[in-house]
Amino acid sequence: MDDIVIHYLEKPQLEDPVFVQGLPGIGNVGKLAAEHLKDEMKGVKFAEIYSKFFPPQVLVLDDGQVRLVQNEMYYVKRGKGKDLVVLVGDYQGLTPDGQYELADFVLKELHKLGVRRLFTLGGYGMGRMVTKPRVLGAATDKALVKEMEGHGVVFARGEPGAGIVGASGLLLGLGKVYDMKAVCLMGETSGYFVDPKSAQAVLEVLTKVLDITIDFAELETRAKQIDQITSKLREVEAVPEGPGKEDLGYIG
Amino acid sequence: MDDIVIHYLEKPQLEDPVFVQGLPGIGNVGKLAAEHLKDEMKGVKFAEIYSKFFPPQVLVLDDGQVRLVQNEMYYVKRGKGKDLVVLVGDYQGLTPDGQYELADFVLKELHKLGVRRLFTLGGYGMGRMVTKPRVLGAATDKALVKEMEGHGVVFARGEPGAGIVGASGLLLGLGKVYDMKAVCLMGETSGYFVDPKSAQAVLEVLTKVLDITIDFAELETRAKQIDQITSKLREVEAVPEGPGKEDLGYIG
Amino acid sequence: MDDIVIHYLEKPQLEDPVFVQGLPGIGNVGKLAAEHLKDEMKGVKFAEIYSKFFPPQVLVLDDGQVRLVQNEMYYVKRGKGKDLVVLVGDYQGLTPDGQYELADFVLKELHKLGVRRLFTLGGYGMGRMVTKPRVLGAATDKALVKEMEGHGVVFARGEPGAGIVGASGLLLGLGKVYDMKAVCLMGETSGYFVDPKSAQAVLEVLTKVLDITIDFAELETRAKQIDQITSKLREVEAVPEGPGKEDLGYIG
Amino acid sequence: MDDIVIHYLEKPQLEDPVFVQGLPGIGNVGKLAAEHLKDEMKGVKFAEIYSKFFPPQVLVLDDGQVRLVQNEMYYVKRGKGKDLVVLVGDYQGLTPDGQYELADFVLKELHKLGVRRLFTLGGYGMGRMVTKPRVLGAATDKALVKEMEGHGVVFARGEPGAGIVGASGLLLGLGKVYDMKAVCLMGETSGYFVDPKSAQAVLEVLTKVLDITIDFAELETRAKQIDQITSKLREVEAVPEGPGKEDLGYIG
Repeated sequence: MDDIVIHYLEKPQLEDPVFVQGLPGIGNVGKLAAEHLKDEMKGVKFAEIYSKFFPPQVLVLDDGQVRLVQNEMYYVKRGKGKDLVVLVGDYQGLTPDGQYELADFVLKELHKLGVRRLFTLGGYGMGRMVTKPRVLGAATDKALVKEMEGHGVVFARGEPGAGIVGASGLLLGLGKVYDMKAVCLMGETSGYFVDPKSAQAVLEVLTKVLDITIDFAELETRAKQIDQITSKLREVEAVPEGPGKEDLGYIG
Repeated sequence: MDDIVIHYLEKPQLEDPVFVQGLPGIGNVGKLAAEHLKDEMKGVKFAEIYSKFFPPQVLVLDDGQVRLVQNEMYYVKRGKGKDLVVLVGDYQGLTPDGQYELADFVLKELHKLGVRRLFTLGGYGMGRMVTKPRVLGAATDKALVKEMEGHGVVFARGEPGAGIVGASGLLLGLGKVYDMKAVCLMGETSGYFVDPKSAQAVLEVLTKVLDITIDFAELETRAKQIDQITSKLREVEAVPEGPGKEDLGYIG
Repeated sequence: MDDIVIHYLEKPQLEDPVFVQGLPGIGNVGKLAAEHLKDEMKGVKFAEIYSKFFPPQVLVLDDGQVRLVQNEMYYVKRGKGKDLVVLVGDYQGLTPDGQYELADFVLKELHKLGVRRLFTLGGYGMGRMVTKPRVLGAATDKALVKEMEGHGVVFARGEPGAGIVGASGLLLGLGKVYDMKAVCLMGETSGYFVDPKSAQAVLEVLTKVLDITIDFAELETRAKQIDQITSKLREVEAVPEGPGKEDLGYIG
Repeated sequence: MDDIVIHYLEKPQLEDPVFVQGLPGIGNVGKLAAEHLKDEMKGVKFAEIYSKFFPPQVLVLDDGQVRLVQNEMYYVKRGKGKDLVVLVGDYQGLTPDGQYELADFVLKELHKLGVRRLFTLGGYGMGRMVTKPRVLGAATDKALVKEMEGHGVVFARGEPGAGIVGASGLLLGLGKVYDMKAVCLMGETSGYFVDPKSAQAVLEVLTKVLDITIDFAELETRAKQIDQITSKLREVEAVPEGPGKEDLGYIG
């Protein structure tokens, strides 16, 4: 079989679309953010990606049917230069070479779809509890850095110190080869829990950049649930909240 | 060498055969069930599958001869729509990509043999002793779910929570691509021991579905032997039998 | 680069040669035996095999020069049906698929050299000290099993229980595909030490089979050195010598 | 995508250039040395190498821009037979086969550039603190061994006992195939810290061989900083400085 297979449910005609990706990673920040975006924007699924670089696994749906683990692409029609393509999924590639192959594959498909601008979303592990997550950035050129700074994205020298590992970084790194202008937005997160609050911080920036208005109620509800759990844990286990930041490096 | 090699001992002419697979996995439930079925039905071996995705190993038979570790296919002639193809074997693929390649390879061969309906057999690890194993199911479409429910198969929301990992799941997931109607039957098992009782539970469902009558004496004898061992162990080590179910996830 | 590269120093004309292989493995029994054989028979090196399935490593020779880790083939001219090809080397393949590829590659080269009969040498780990190592066997057909029994080789039901892992086994398993008659000779060994005594036991059988007379002085000297070390260790640490055999499985 | 991609910024015309490589490894000796050399010689970057054998990672530069992890080649024009090509980088290949592929790839590019002489730089782990690091050598032929001995390089029987693992060794081992004359220079280092002092020792030899004069002030400053840290650590933790050398084997 092919290493990676894409199955188009529909071939959408999009005008100069912007691409947004969020996959599982630290705090699941990117995945939560991208899924919330496509849900709120009523994205239409148009492609499924299977790969032997994913785990050999099917998921069992509530009705007893199975589906292979996959990545999925959704589109949102908003008009020329504002159309969206959103990629979410169950897994990132399992191996380093799988990560490269998947990133390259996605970039080739995006090129065909006319995408020239990318946003990858992820978490930035702080190793300590984070009350007000900042959104850190990295980009493929200086003009983008400036533009993002105007939207409150933090570009801090030496952060992230270990670079960006995984699909969020590779799409930028390999995107340069395809002449894609790309930004990675990373929400600060402890790295200990799934973090809807960090996902919201990332989305607040992204929606400002893309001139989108969405509701955050669902993320806020989930953040409250997580807060209740972690505050209980903190009573019991005294999770550190002070400085003592360690760079966990992985971003996803 | 080719990644996967199939060696046909015979090219059977089958009429709309049904495929059954049982490979090593949790509790060896699938392997025990499929081997018992082909033994009782006097299946005829017609193909051997070698692969560099299996361990680099030969087995030494009782007469001193060796054979490569392999998967094997047997057929049973029962008439149109009732013929069986049974796949058993020493190993599943060692790596994720090997699992994908092997599942895809088997599906291609099944397609040539005219197979359109698959049953994969496996165990569902409960993390506790199981007295009366239920048989859980997953399927490629809703009609099959309904049909299986009619035979007592349990489709429980959120079970298995972690999906189905390995060959049993992949054949369903990739089978959809080949337009195969497929069911995975999973016998509940502790996950601590080889489990002939769970294998019997799975086979009792399968034989009802396929309208087959077979003898279970051998599985029952083996189940009694295991029971004796585990009851002694329980006296000594107090293996938990209460609730405290953990989803071990792997099914095989 | 190619996955496996063979570099012929010479293309020997051999008459129906017999192949002998000994690579690193448990107790280094196979490697010691095969190297002793080619040294005593004054084998002439005629081919070197490099591969990316070996470690990325060079060895530094005593004169400061390097050489890539490799497998090597030597020939010995003794006349029709008695010529030898001996393969020794620094490593076996690192990965399962590498093991398969290397075994298949070697078999193809042997086929070109006119080889139809193989002997692979290895150790059989007992998990206890062995005073008088038996030589166990496995073969590709029943006639060979009988022939080897006539030379004192032991074919014991259920031994080795876990089969034969690695190059020694694969050459037999894949050799069948190339219509090679092949025997694996395994000297019993503790699995704790390099074992020249076991290597000698294996060679005593092999030389009888091949009607070769060689000197064992060097192996005997090395065996004595090891004996001195292990007897000292036994005083201090009480290494078990009694029964309590565990099947270590790996043979090499 | 291709397994390895080279992107030429410029196609330099070099006359019989000498190649120098230093990549991350034990004590980062090779990387420190090669980077210092190209910095002091004002090397001009002319090629970037990406590969799926490297980690799936981008680095974030101080200005917020990203770049894929890579290896880089620089040239220095000094005249016929004295031109330099220097390779430095973020990583070595992650897997054994990746190491082989990368070494073979680099050798092919060097061949096109007219390179016939290689120097690979690395550290030699001693497992103890080293006050005055010797520079050990290995080479592709005896004449080179002699020449290097004339420059104070130590070729000690049995050192390094475990051979040379990684890119430094492979370039020599595979270089023979491309008829390259190659030397590996290894600075003794504890293996516990980044070691600019060992890097300087290696460079002092190399610059003598290549008839180059460079300033070592920066390496000396960094060595002093490391010395201060390690001397403090020694007070506290008593890092062994006596004999007790263990061969750490890995060289890089």
